[in-house]
Amino acid sequence: MPESQLRIAIVGATGAVGREALSLLAEAGHPASHVVPLASSRSAGAPLPYGACTLRTSELTSEALASCDAAIFAADAETARRFAPQAAEYGCLVIDNSSAFRADPAVPLVIPEVNADALGSRSRLVANPNCSTTILLTALEPIRRACGITRIMVSTYQAVSGAGLAGIDELREQTRAALEGRSVPSKVFPESCAFNVFTHESPIDLETGFNLEERKLINETRRIWNTPDLEIIPTCVRVPVERVHSQSVSAELRSSIDASSLRSLLARAPGLELIDDPATGTFPTPLRAAGRNPIAVGRPRISVADQRITISLWICGDQLRKGAALNALQILDHMLGTTLAFDRGAHHASPVES
Amino acid sequence: MPESQLRIAIVGATGAVGREALSLLAEAGHPASHVVPLASSRSAGAPLPYGACTLRTSELTSEALASCDAAIFAADAETARRFAPQAAEYGCLVIDNSSAFRADPAVPLVIPEVNADALGSRSRLVANPNCSTTILLTALEPIRRACGITRIMVSTYQAVSGAGLAGIDELREQTRAALEGRSVPSKVFPESCAFNVFTHESPIDLETGFNLEERKLINETRRIWNTPDLEIIPTCVRVPVERVHSQSVSAELRSSIDASSLRSLLARAPGLELIDDPATGTFPTPLRAAGRNPIAVGRPRISVADQRITISLWICGDQLRKGAALNALQILDHMLGTTLAFDRGAHHASPVES
Repeated sequence: MPESQLRIAIVGATGAVGREALSLLAEAGHPASHVVPLASSRSAGAPLPYGACTLRTSELTSEALASCDAAIFAADAETARRFAPQAAEYGCLVIDNSSAFRADPAVPLVIPEVNADALGSRSRLVANPNCSTTILLTALEPIRRACGITRIMVSTYQAVSGAGLAGIDELREQTRAALEGRSVPSKVFPESCAFNVFTHESPIDLETGFNLEERKLINETRRIWNTPDLEIIPTCVRVPVERVHSQSVSAELRSSIDASSLRSLLARAPGLELIDDPATGTFPTPLRAAGRNPIAVGRPRISVADQRITISLWICGDQLRKGAALNALQILDHMLGTTLAFDRGAHHASPVES
Repeated sequence: MPESQLRIAIVGATGAVGREALSLLAEAGHPASHVVPLASSRSAGAPLPYGACTLRTSELTSEALASCDAAIFAADAETARRFAPQAAEYGCLVIDNSSAFRADPAVPLVIPEVNADALGSRSRLVANPNCSTTILLTALEPIRRACGITRIMVSTYQAVSGAGLAGIDELREQTRAALEGRSVPSKVFPESCAFNVFTHESPIDLETGFNLEERKLINETRRIWNTPDLEIIPTCVRVPVERVHSQSVSAELRSSIDASSLRSLLARAPGLELIDDPATGTFPTPLRAAGRNPIAVGRPRISVADQRITISLWICGDQLRKGAALNALQILDHMLGTTLAFDRGAHHASPVES
C-alpha cells in the first residue's frame, strides 16, 4: 500500500514523546487523515496540533488499534503490556517506546544506524531503546565499527523533559520562584530543579549501586551490540535543561585511531553531526541540538597510556527526537521501506520548546 | 604572636572568592580590626560586610601589604605576579588563588588534607590549586592512600560563579529573560546559561583537544600527587548552577576494596561528608553543598573487569569555599598553627547565595 495510505496510531499522543511523533509525521508530510492520536479516556477528545491542522485524541482501545497499520506506543510500560502484543497479533506493526519489552529476547531492540539487522522480516513488535542508550550508541557506533570498543565510561546531563512535560513545568515554576526568592515544593522530582543538578531519580539497585537509568544503559547497550560482558560505567544526572540529553563519554578502543580519522568518522556517520570548532568555541549544546534530528558530537580527544587507547566525546542529542519518537519512526521506515521519518528538520535550528 | 593579633589582607576582597574569605574569617571570629580588604583603585572605599560589622576596602599597594602578617590573594594572575612575591619578601605569608605560581617548582601547590608536607618551613608564598583540582583530590585522597590510583576519568558540572559574581548575574538575567520568552546576549560566557549546559569556556589546546580548565586538572593533580605520568581524562562543563561544582568521577585502583570499606573510608576522611542514602534518595547536590565546608561525596560504586578495579563517585563541593577561600585559610593555619579556618559552618546548611 502507498505510504500515504498507512494509518498510523500514536498511543500516548498527548505526552512529550507522542507530540514529538506527531510533529515528525507532520514535518514528513504524512496526511492528517491517516494519523490516529490515542490516549487514556482522561485525555480523549483533547485537540492536538498537526502541522496546520488540529487532530482530536481518541480513547485507546483494541478496536482503535485494530483499524491501524502501525502504532507508535509512547505510553507507560503497563499500557504497552496491555495493548501492544494484541495489536501486533491483529497485524499492526508496533514500535514500543516503554521499557516493557526491551529485555524480551522475542522482541527486537533496535537503533536503525546500529542494528537494523535485528529486525526480522516477521517482526510485528519492536522495542525502542531508552533515550540515553540511543543517543550514546548512535554516537559511538562508527567508532565501534572502525576500532572496536572494549569499555565505556559515561556521565549524563539529562533534561527534565525526560520525565515528561510535567518536568518542564516544574523546572520553570521552581526557577521562577527561586529568582523571586521563593521556593516551590517538588512534585515530579525528588530534588529542586532550580539552579541545581542531582543524580537520576530512578531507584538504586542496592547490590551494584547503579540507579535504574544507569542499568538500562548497561543492559540495553550489551543487548543491542550483542556484547554481554562489555564493561559500562554510567553516572546519570539531571540538569536544569528543558530538552536534550548531553553526555560526556570515554571509550576504550581495541585498535588505534588518529585525531583526523576520528573527526572524519564522526563527520561522515549517519545520524551524527560533528560540531567542533575550537577557533570560535562552537561545540554541541542542548540549545543547539534542541528540536533537531542528528546527534551533535564534539570535543573529540584521544588519550593513550599503557597501550590503552581511550577516546572522549561530548554529545548532545534531543531525547524526544532521536532518543524516542524519531528512532521509532525510523524503525517503522526500515520495516516498511517508507520515509515517515524523512528528515526535513535536520539542517535548521528549532526552538527549545516541546 | 597570638592569632587574634594577626593582620590578614584579602586581596581582591570585593570578588566572589574575596568575599568568601571574609565570611570564613568572620565565622571563625577573627577580629575585624585585623582584617584588611584590598582591591583595585576602582573598588577602593567599597563597603564589605564582615559578620555584624562593615569594612572599607583600601587600594592594593605594596605598602598596604607590608603592614600585614599574611595575605590571601583572590585576584587575577597579573595582580599576583605584580604584588605577591614582593609581599612575601617583606615577610608577609602569601597564599595565591590565581594560576600565576601553580606550575612554579619554587612555590608549593597545596591541599592540606593531601600534601601539607609540601609546605616547607621557609615557604612564604604558596599557591592554591584550581577549584576543580582541590574538590577532586580532597575526595579521592583517602582512596589513593588506601588503594593507590592509576587512572582518573572525571566529568564536571561547574557553577557559573566559577567565573565570578558576574556569572551569577548573567545566569539570573538570562534565565529571567528565557522564562519571559526574551533572550539576553551573553557577556561573561560564550553560550547562554539559561536552561543550557556547555563545555568549559577556557581556550582549547589544539594538540590535545583539552581546554585550559581540563589541563589545570591534569597538571595540578600530577604535581600535587607527584605522579607525573598519571593518566587523567577530564571533561569540564558549565551547568546553570549558582555555586558548587559537581563531579562524576571514575578512578582505577592499584589494589582492591569492598563496598563497605569504601563507604567507611569516605565517611571518616578529613574534609569529606558522605551523603548517600538510597532509601530516601538523598545524595550530594549543589544546593545541599552550597555555603558548606566539607566536600559532599555519594553514589560510591565498584566495577571490576579484566582484573581492573574502578570506583565511581558523585561529588559536590563549594568551589568558593574548599575550592578557593577555605583551602587558602587552611594552608595559612598549617603554616602558622592557627585556626583561622576553624569550621563552624560545616554542619548546618547555608543559603546558595555567595
